[in-house]
Amino acid sequence: MERNSSREKIDDVIRCIEELGYKAHPIVGVERTVIGCVGHEDKSPLSQLESMSGVESVIPILKPFKLAGREFKPEPSILDVAGIPVGGTQLALIAGPCSVESREQTLEIAHAVKEAGAQFLRGGAFKPRTSPYAFQGLRGQGLEILAEAREQTGLRIVTEIVSIEDLPMIQDVADVFQIGARNCQNYALLNAVGQSKKPVVLKRGMSTTINEWLMAAEYVLSHGNYNVVLCERGIRTFETATRFTLDLNAVPAVKQLSHLPIIVDPSHGTGHWNMVEVMARAAIAAGADGLMIEVHPHPDAALSDGSQSLKPEKFAHLVAEARKIAEAVDREI
Amino acid sequence: MERNSSREKIDDVIRCIEELGYKAHPIVGVERTVIGCVGHEDKSPLSQLESMSGVESVIPILKPFKLAGREFKPEPSILDVAGIPVGGTQLALIAGPCSVESREQTLEIAHAVKEAGAQFLRGGAFKPRTSPYAFQGLRGQGLEILAEAREQTGLRIVTEIVSIEDLPMIQDVADVFQIGARNCQNYALLNAVGQSKKPVVLKRGMSTTINEWLMAAEYVLSHGNYNVVLCERGIRTFETATRFTLDLNAVPAVKQLSHLPIIVDPSHGTGHWNMVEVMARAAIAAGADGLMIEVHPHPDAALSDGSQSLKPEKFAHLVAEARKIAEAVDREI
Amino acid sequence: MERNSSREKIDDVIRCIEELGYKAHPIVGVERTVIGCVGHEDKSPLSQLESMSGVESVIPILKPFKLAGREFKPEPSILDVAGIPVGGTQLALIAGPCSVESREQTLEIAHAVKEAGAQFLRGGAFKPRTSPYAFQGLRGQGLEILAEAREQTGLRIVTEIVSIEDLPMIQDVADVFQIGARNCQNYALLNAVGQSKKPVVLKRGMSTTINEWLMAAEYVLSHGNYNVVLCERGIRTFETATRFTLDLNAVPAVKQLSHLPIIVDPSHGTGHWNMVEVMARAAIAAGADGLMIEVHPHPDAALSDGSQSLKPEKFAHLVAEARKIAEAVDREI
Amino acid sequence: MERNSSREKIDDVIRCIEELGYKAHPIVGVERTVIGCVGHEDKSPLSQLESMSGVESVIPILKPFKLAGREFKPEPSILDVAGIPVGGTQLALIAGPCSVESREQTLEIAHAVKEAGAQFLRGGAFKPRTSPYAFQGLRGQGLEILAEAREQTGLRIVTEIVSIEDLPMIQDVADVFQIGARNCQNYALLNAVGQSKKPVVLKRGMSTTINEWLMAAEYVLSHGNYNVVLCERGIRTFETATRFTLDLNAVPAVKQLSHLPIIVDPSHGTGHWNMVEVMARAAIAAGADGLMIEVHPHPDAALSDGSQSLKPEKFAHLVAEARKIAEAVDREI
Repeated sequence: MERNSSREKIDDVIRCIEELGYKAHPIVGVERTVIGCVGHEDKSPLSQLESMSGVESVIPILKPFKLAGREFKPEPSILDVAGIPVGGTQLALIAGPCSVESREQTLEIAHAVKEAGAQFLRGGAFKPRTSPYAFQGLRGQGLEILAEAREQTGLRIVTEIVSIEDLPMIQDVADVFQIGARNCQNYALLNAVGQSKKPVVLKRGMSTTINEWLMAAEYVLSHGNYNVVLCERGIRTFETATRFTLDLNAVPAVKQLSHLPIIVDPSHGTGHWNMVEVMARAAIAAGADGLMIEVHPHPDAALSDGSQSLKPEKFAHLVAEARKIAEAVDREI
Repeated sequence: MERNSSREKIDDVIRCIEELGYKAHPIVGVERTVIGCVGHEDKSPLSQLESMSGVESVIPILKPFKLAGREFKPEPSILDVAGIPVGGTQLALIAGPCSVESREQTLEIAHAVKEAGAQFLRGGAFKPRTSPYAFQGLRGQGLEILAEAREQTGLRIVTEIVSIEDLPMIQDVADVFQIGARNCQNYALLNAVGQSKKPVVLKRGMSTTINEWLMAAEYVLSHGNYNVVLCERGIRTFETATRFTLDLNAVPAVKQLSHLPIIVDPSHGTGHWNMVEVMARAAIAAGADGLMIEVHPHPDAALSDGSQSLKPEKFAHLVAEARKIAEAVDREI
Repeated sequence: MERNSSREKIDDVIRCIEELGYKAHPIVGVERTVIGCVGHEDKSPLSQLESMSGVESVIPILKPFKLAGREFKPEPSILDVAGIPVGGTQLALIAGPCSVESREQTLEIAHAVKEAGAQFLRGGAFKPRTSPYAFQGLRGQGLEILAEAREQTGLRIVTEIVSIEDLPMIQDVADVFQIGARNCQNYALLNAVGQSKKPVVLKRGMSTTINEWLMAAEYVLSHGNYNVVLCERGIRTFETATRFTLDLNAVPAVKQLSHLPIIVDPSHGTGHWNMVEVMARAAIAAGADGLMIEVHPHPDAALSDGSQSLKPEKFAHLVAEARKIAEAVDREI
Repeated sequence: MERNSSREKIDDVIRCIEELGYKAHPIVGVERTVIGCVGHEDKSPLSQLESMSGVESVIPILKPFKLAGREFKPEPSILDVAGIPVGGTQLALIAGPCSVESREQTLEIAHAVKEAGAQFLRGGAFKPRTSPYAFQGLRGQGLEILAEAREQTGLRIVTEIVSIEDLPMIQDVADVFQIGARNCQNYALLNAVGQSKKPVVLKRGMSTTINEWLMAAEYVLSHGNYNVVLCERGIRTFETATRFTLDLNAVPAVKQLSHLPIIVDPSHGTGHWNMVEVMARAAIAAGADGLMIEVHPHPDAALSDGSQSLKPEKFAHLVAEARKIAEAVDREI
């Protein structure tokens, strides 16, 4: 309440709190009164109080998520992601091109990353691009190429879904749905993948707070799909030396709040291929459960994101370096 | 190029530029060489050069948008938005509740905002909410209520679309589609409303740069739907005194780059009802082509965003104040 | 407290709160306990509680400032700034070059801005520049030129102080000290100008929250110098279309929290001369108590910040436009 | 240049570039002309061109720093910081309380961190606090306590300087000056420590870009003081789960641009004691040359920043964990 609010205004607010179904706990100070509110989990109705006379501000105390929270499940989850455990001792390694560009390119990369130790192949068949005039992906043809790559290598396929319409088509091929940063709060899409029951890699939106990100995961979980892997990929800040600011603090922050596994994408997060290896090492030291890395045989001819892609031999070097860090924190690659 | 790059590396880069179909213009300094690239409009393939040996950075010089740009259409567009001209002398006034909650609430607000001078009624039937457990809108029933409000008042209906699936249903009732901030870069949805030909209010994403926002508009325009009204609604910054940071600089910045009209939503932008009127005035002084304002008869009982909604009488006051500013800048309400 | 904290941990925290001299008010919910703390104004010792076992987080409720706050002085202050009232009906107009470059340049601008309606001449003799190799100001010689400009025009002099050492020298000439954005939290300098008793224009730091900014003002006020004028000049965000993001929301936000006057600098805030006039208009509509504008006779030959400076005739146009907005909000220029 | 600029305007700009002492290289495209500028290192005068008719924007291509840059000194610097090499294989470990609070507290911590492996004791005698009413440090008495701690333990003393006035006093005791985040762009102070020749730990400002930070270092270097250690300590972003966003990307970014050593402060960067160890590990994996860690025997009774301080036994644990990562990246603690 505002300083020196009248008894009458305080009583009005208390009455309103109780009408909303909460219990009011006024704490009376010399100059000011603070009113605690206790009740059911959803505290959002209380924000309305802010428009009442005498109310200075409404400050939420409790965490808004349920199924994603540590309070719901205290121990970390080890998910079964298409037969690969994610969240345990073994780190998940997802690698591949930004876009599926051709059969040759994709199979070449698939064999290379498989050999280097990856369990998952990433590659976009449907691409969300800033410009409508940029390459938008090979779509159905791209999915066929991914299916062939899986057949040849045994790698699980992680591919992005950008529209509910494409779900049946992608579902037939993908082992894991990827929700990209721009769709992190596309709730219709989250509901759809929640109903599908396939594992989901949920990238953090570029200005999504950690709380909002866990709430986005909650959309998927609330449909009974518990196989959600979070992926930190950089946030928007004022700094321009990197394309985004990869926020490794999100790793321990998520681990304190949630039982869900979290992996890190240093390719998008930094935007510069020559920072990817070092930030991959840092991610593992920060406790990440895996990595997502862009790999391309000819980055200077890539149809998208070439400047942040590693050549296959540099990826193999990254894996070797990452393994040393993994061992230092009692993990395995 | 990096300082003291060899002649050989420079030649490699020049060759690569020319293979990509651009003309290379090397500028040789004492210690450093810069290579200008001239060619077709889409400069995105050039970013691949960044992974070449000797290349320090690739810096885009030209604007990436075509149809949204001033260069395509030098004079400001005056759009026909369901019979109301937007972008000319007359300011657009869109007002209404965050959510359609009931027939009574909606009709009461519709009559009140009509009387105060609004030409458009806003109201969400499909609500994108941070929590899956929060009220998600009345959906079809909400659309029926909006249709009745239009019939009674003649107000044009602006309502949010969050999923392509809902398009046929919403299309029957809405005069204008609203794309919310979280879907600003949901390109599948932008393509769908682009094909529909109905006018679109495109809200800025909370971390979308002005360039990216205009590129999102370009998605709609590129399908032949030129009726796009941009809406600034606040960006994510470090400041917590306001819910978002309403970025009025976007108004002159957009007007310099684009011919599209731009309106301002100070309700979401500030998050506090007692800042809405003053920032609405400022928006008009900054050159905005209209306002979008949340109005609710009982903000303290609203099912969403009560703390930023105005009571109808406060909205009428806002219109009177805004009119004074409009006259001072040769506009009309 | 964390969910399901033991009675023992809760008692420990209560004991600790009381040892720190506050009164503890535990509110016991079904699963969780929240403890309100009431006591003396300085709540900062309570943040230590965060390291205690069982404490989930410490959330401050009260405002930390005293002398700068509306609670200390409910009505807006009208300051006497070197004989000019600031904060009342009359708007303050501060104009001049970024740097004092020469006698001719400064006198020419001084006469021009005087004629256009300014009451204050701004001009830097001591310049804080990002690069040590850039022009650092004329220093003593610059002050002499400013003194002559005052003598010829009667304009009050506003000039930046960047170091306590320079205080005696600047004090002899300046009517108003300017504290620049980079020194907004240079507390030693704030203490020094606080002791001097001269009026102070305190620019907001580029990542200073409104609360921190008012606390910086509190440093000056706490030495008995109540003549502090706040100046919004843009914050750091991800947006690059403007040099900074001029945050006009700060105007109503400061007015709600504090009685101090607030002016706006759209020249630094936008960084582009062709956005200055429109954002100056918006600032006045938002309730600003004045403007600070960079003016230069030959912006393309300026030794600093030429790209954001207005020519004298454009400044005169800005004043005419600003006057129309001022009248619309019952203010005067 | 703007699209379709006249030949006359282009010639005007070329003439102006040449008057400023640069050579102009026009690149003529079908619709647009771009003019490259080559000349002496300081490109800042060119920004004035932005106010010329026909000029669309001025885009700097070259790096602005000289002495701090890799181009000036290609190999990483190993500095002699009070007898301890910093920047080589051996990592620097700086630990201690936020504030020197008492002789007992400081000596207890000093012995504990010495034993755990630290080479440097940090402790503030002069504290820059957000509130003028908060504890401001023991000042001279604090320096005496630090001197005694050095005598007893042999640890080198790192302590913050907030004002030039205090320099002689601090100089007698400190082995290393610390410049805090709020003073990162206090150029008067940077000049003063540049002249002193003592080693300097220069913390990054909370909204200072990496380029600006290196320019701040350049102020110190340009006075002939080459012993500058950069310290990343978190930047301001929209995220509130951490106090700041510790930006580990700054480590590889600085290493690519500069030869100066860079250390990381995860205590301020995260603001939560239970994230410090994990982010310290990540910092070393990212290539940091050392750590600065807050340690306090009784964090819940600390006079400042208790919530982010580690108890001595937790610090010893951190060192053991950090050592494992150091070994994995061929460094030593």
